[in-house]
Amino acid sequence: MPANRLKIGLIGAGRIGSLHAEHLVTRIPAAHLLMVADTNEEAARACAERYTIPSFTCNYMELLEHPAIQAVVICSSTATHACIIEEAAQLGKHIFCEKPIALDLPTIDRAIAAVERASSGRNLKLQIGFNRRFDANYRRVRQAVERAEVGRPHLLHITSRDPTPPPIEYIRASGGLFLDMMIHDFDMARFLIGSEVEEVFTLAGVMSDPAIGEAGDVDTAVVMLRFANGVIATINNSRRAAYGYDQRVELLGSAGAISTDNNYPNTAIISDGRCVRRDLPLHFFLERYTESFVRELSAFVEAVHYDQPVPVSAQDGRAPVVMALAAHRSLQEQRPVRLSEIDAIYSQP
Amino acid sequence: MPANRLKIGLIGAGRIGSLHAEHLVTRIPAAHLLMVADTNEEAARACAERYTIPSFTCNYMELLEHPAIQAVVICSSTATHACIIEEAAQLGKHIFCEKPIALDLPTIDRAIAAVERASSGRNLKLQIGFNRRFDANYRRVRQAVERAEVGRPHLLHITSRDPTPPPIEYIRASGGLFLDMMIHDFDMARFLIGSEVEEVFTLAGVMSDPAIGEAGDVDTAVVMLRFANGVIATINNSRRAAYGYDQRVELLGSAGAISTDNNYPNTAIISDGRCVRRDLPLHFFLERYTESFVRELSAFVEAVHYDQPVPVSAQDGRAPVVMALAAHRSLQEQRPVRLSEIDAIYSQP
Amino acid sequence: MPANRLKIGLIGAGRIGSLHAEHLVTRIPAAHLLMVADTNEEAARACAERYTIPSFTCNYMELLEHPAIQAVVICSSTATHACIIEEAAQLGKHIFCEKPIALDLPTIDRAIAAVERASSGRNLKLQIGFNRRFDANYRRVRQAVERAEVGRPHLLHITSRDPTPPPIEYIRASGGLFLDMMIHDFDMARFLIGSEVEEVFTLAGVMSDPAIGEAGDVDTAVVMLRFANGVIATINNSRRAAYGYDQRVELLGSAGAISTDNNYPNTAIISDGRCVRRDLPLHFFLERYTESFVRELSAFVEAVHYDQPVPVSAQDGRAPVVMALAAHRSLQEQRPVRLSEIDAIYSQP
Amino acid sequence: MPANRLKIGLIGAGRIGSLHAEHLVTRIPAAHLLMVADTNEEAARACAERYTIPSFTCNYMELLEHPAIQAVVICSSTATHACIIEEAAQLGKHIFCEKPIALDLPTIDRAIAAVERASSGRNLKLQIGFNRRFDANYRRVRQAVERAEVGRPHLLHITSRDPTPPPIEYIRASGGLFLDMMIHDFDMARFLIGSEVEEVFTLAGVMSDPAIGEAGDVDTAVVMLRFANGVIATINNSRRAAYGYDQRVELLGSAGAISTDNNYPNTAIISDGRCVRRDLPLHFFLERYTESFVRELSAFVEAVHYDQPVPVSAQDGRAPVVMALAAHRSLQEQRPVRLSEIDAIYSQP
Repeated sequence: MPANRLKIGLIGAGRIGSLHAEHLVTRIPAAHLLMVADTNEEAARACAERYTIPSFTCNYMELLEHPAIQAVVICSSTATHACIIEEAAQLGKHIFCEKPIALDLPTIDRAIAAVERASSGRNLKLQIGFNRRFDANYRRVRQAVERAEVGRPHLLHITSRDPTPPPIEYIRASGGLFLDMMIHDFDMARFLIGSEVEEVFTLAGVMSDPAIGEAGDVDTAVVMLRFANGVIATINNSRRAAYGYDQRVELLGSAGAISTDNNYPNTAIISDGRCVRRDLPLHFFLERYTESFVRELSAFVEAVHYDQPVPVSAQDGRAPVVMALAAHRSLQEQRPVRLSEIDAIYSQP
Repeated sequence: MPANRLKIGLIGAGRIGSLHAEHLVTRIPAAHLLMVADTNEEAARACAERYTIPSFTCNYMELLEHPAIQAVVICSSTATHACIIEEAAQLGKHIFCEKPIALDLPTIDRAIAAVERASSGRNLKLQIGFNRRFDANYRRVRQAVERAEVGRPHLLHITSRDPTPPPIEYIRASGGLFLDMMIHDFDMARFLIGSEVEEVFTLAGVMSDPAIGEAGDVDTAVVMLRFANGVIATINNSRRAAYGYDQRVELLGSAGAISTDNNYPNTAIISDGRCVRRDLPLHFFLERYTESFVRELSAFVEAVHYDQPVPVSAQDGRAPVVMALAAHRSLQEQRPVRLSEIDAIYSQP
Repeated sequence: MPANRLKIGLIGAGRIGSLHAEHLVTRIPAAHLLMVADTNEEAARACAERYTIPSFTCNYMELLEHPAIQAVVICSSTATHACIIEEAAQLGKHIFCEKPIALDLPTIDRAIAAVERASSGRNLKLQIGFNRRFDANYRRVRQAVERAEVGRPHLLHITSRDPTPPPIEYIRASGGLFLDMMIHDFDMARFLIGSEVEEVFTLAGVMSDPAIGEAGDVDTAVVMLRFANGVIATINNSRRAAYGYDQRVELLGSAGAISTDNNYPNTAIISDGRCVRRDLPLHFFLERYTESFVRELSAFVEAVHYDQPVPVSAQDGRAPVVMALAAHRSLQEQRPVRLSEIDAIYSQP
Repeated sequence: MPANRLKIGLIGAGRIGSLHAEHLVTRIPAAHLLMVADTNEEAARACAERYTIPSFTCNYMELLEHPAIQAVVICSSTATHACIIEEAAQLGKHIFCEKPIALDLPTIDRAIAAVERASSGRNLKLQIGFNRRFDANYRRVRQAVERAEVGRPHLLHITSRDPTPPPIEYIRASGGLFLDMMIHDFDMARFLIGSEVEEVFTLAGVMSDPAIGEAGDVDTAVVMLRFANGVIATINNSRRAAYGYDQRVELLGSAGAISTDNNYPNTAIISDGRCVRRDLPLHFFLERYTESFVRELSAFVEAVHYDQPVPVSAQDGRAPVVMALAAHRSLQEQRPVRLSEIDAIYSQP
């Protein structure tokens, strides 16, 4: 296996880039992380040292043009994703890109088209970083749907809440709650149900943090989804759950139901004179989704090695953005919005 | 206490009437059930014998006019509720009436007005049978809200599913899922949040039983509610949950969350070579809500005895009907509907 | 059914007697409670008034000799049980007697012999009040054993802890922890396993309340049991569990395991900034075992009505006393004690 | 950190040795695994290749005498542990040794004495591989005891069951259930209570697998422990739990109780027409205790780096062997056995 480990370059040495670096180096034997690029040269150097990556650069083009590198993992800021995807594709690199591809559809569509053009004859892979699909709990729900353990799906309810809001500067650059946070849940809804959403309706508000409202965003939102196959789903998001990271799902089917709970740091139950209690759930996504981050990159490496379809396609990267744009429009106009409206807007000249 | 037990007449000896008869006779010492009326004389006789009720009749006016009877419990068919309320009020009887008062607002408003007129100077009580408010689980959630154990409410999610659909004839006469089934959840939402709903949006379908669709109703529905105080709620109903009666609620507040589970016939967990499992939840409302049925009638008897406000008022009986009508309209027109629209329609000449 | 309701007299109007009175009057239609006796005439009168029992007396012989009374429920102090059993049997009454029959074997054996003599030709019933056999959780475990849902039993672990110790005067008259408290668990072990215990070993101490030690008793004890069929069981008792009444069981079998949890006043789970918690379990035996008290008396009434074997026999009343005496001896001598030793001692002249 | 990574040699490339190799290479940055030794040269070579260990040997003395190696991890067969400990100590190496040190006390005492002699002036570390002390669930219980979250400990109950018995050849060489399997639980009892055991009593049998009986061992056992501080504990072991690996603990204290559950592969709950169920627990120790294996070696490396006491001392390795020998004697002689008896036997000339 070492002989043909997949040679990878990492673009972006921030929080999520460092996480992927660690996993590539220590947990994924079939991968070989050769170089890391970050516009902040110090960050690139520190990352290289920490994870014993052979080389680093502050110029990602140097990485892209490095002949030994077969695949890139893009963890730079969202605004740069689409452009780097296009450049990497033109240079014939396989691509793993953090979500979202971009915050608008024309940019996404241009990037996808570039990969398709470049891919012809070479089977270039493009996988989008919706890591939660690889979480053991959600996979078990998907498995139950595939095996019809609860029959045909009827209703889906997704709960997704963060322990605390991010800094207000982050909020401002994030594209808003629907594109930044609920996008994971839009992907999860599609993944679990295996059908496309046709229409959404949104109610939302500023309930936790007035500063988020001043920044033009909401901090609490509920979206209803109508799927092509008739399934109805609800997603609720909050930027602040006092008890920590809350990530659960419930699905009702014709023959039963399946639901998941949060993950906890231990199973201990303490009973004293006041109550029966346990410690709070795992605090945030780094703790809760550690294994899913490892599995998504392993799956990418494996898809390249064996020339098989990636588990999260370019289309899987595009669809949740359409849903987020529709949800946002529904909030603004206080009416149900069909996803076809969103596509129609962007396909106009 | 026996000296001044509240003398009660029961109108309607069907399933729910018999349940109330049993509770009045065996569980509520402050009540004295004197007479039962049912248009089916045999049903009235059987009920009287079974619960040792002194007299019975097939003519409920005989019961209403009986001078010893101080209060009536109305469990007849929905179409007769409003009329009997008016007659009972005119005869100066306190009234406990099963939900809903009626399926249309003018009838409801006429009945409420009649009670108000008759009540002047006599403090006549009118309590509506939303028994779930007296369930230990929901009361605990309400208590948590009142004590601000989870801070100010932000989001509410109500799950309410029946084990199997009722007979199709019942469906036809029921007024539809929103007025027949979700009305309990509309009441629960108001009860838990302590604010009024301003707008609803509905998605629904026929997923379990085509015959229900042929009867012009839906069997699965999700409704989003926007409260005056900003809270957003979702309610999901299904006429068929393969695993039985599913009655749960989740509430997110600014300082935490509270959720309830179903009730089970026992706590036993069995682990064998295939899974870790427990028996199905208590099957249906008679098993699950037994204690809440007792408590609602006890509360009514107590409210009369001590001349205190009833815990579920006439207005509490009216509001969920408005919500149900709005939810139904939202489904028909596929747009969010404000409750003020419904009131406006009915107040037109 | 009212025509031939079983006519019952209640002896002892204390806490447990009043509980049975309430159940006989309100929950068991096949029973008719005719008279209550208590040496404290005021207690007898109050009980009669509260539950509308036709007559009362301070002389229980008056009750026993009342020709209409077919069965007696004995809830007097333990020291009087055996004597009243003998007298009731001689007068041809069916007998339900609270546990234990007596604190020593010769007295128990004499009482049982008296019932057997009196019973010949009349099928007199004697049922002992081990109510926990009728609890839904324990019945489910027994059902699992009978259906071999977890295969053949191998190991049993019983947890039984009170929220707070009783008054020290109660302790002094109780016969000690093994005869007063663990006797329920000895019965439960026999009931669940369906085999006889051959040997016990005890470790115990005074951990919660020095006053209990000064009264010559222990407040915390663990007993190991070896059954004739090879099963090994452990029972742990504590007079003080800070979190309330703790009543659970675990059973390992050749094909799996079954365990039960406590019962709770509601299912609500609250998550806040400190922990995920629920309210404490139902506080004590009156709350936890209400339904089992009703069911044991119903079963007694039914056994008499249909002349069928009682579900808790005289022998079921005797065996746990032997176990308690053996457990106590094991504690004193710090060695395993065979139950046959206890029988041998008492059968000596 | 790479500059002074602890240079380690691994002796034994079997299942547990390979596990440690993987963790040392991928999860413990402060460690540098230089060489692996196994009497089976092929096994040593395969292990070296798989985990990119620079060198391997079939002669462990070559490893011990390698001047660069500072510490050894001993995973060879139990019979060789004590001897290798002595040799490693004489050569001045720090030692991590899998449990047990040996199956008899004189051998253990000789090994410990050798380390003490060699250690003088060099602070040689000897840590024993009781990995479960590093499991998140058990650590939480220990933390609760240390913080007095449940007051002073009164009762402890440890459940420890394997999914299936090991091969009969393994049983024959294992030293028996008490030295092979329950030894982990003896260590856990001491760890959680923080006091020494004075007396044990054993009941055991052959319930699952007659072949184990024919090999002179038991497959199911319950041991009661009396601690010096008065705490009473019960440990139950079974070689076969149909539902998988069952590892739980319950502790009652003066102010409450704490209990732990098993770990599961996911949190999904499925409700269908038959039951409410979840998947079986993590199957066996490799899955359940992965993180604890990593943490115990990290703690060893850290103890060497910072010259601090190891968290599981030589004495912690000896005490559970004394307990196992006492438990075995109690089973044979069917009486409670004091640990001082065992020490007395072995200190005789």
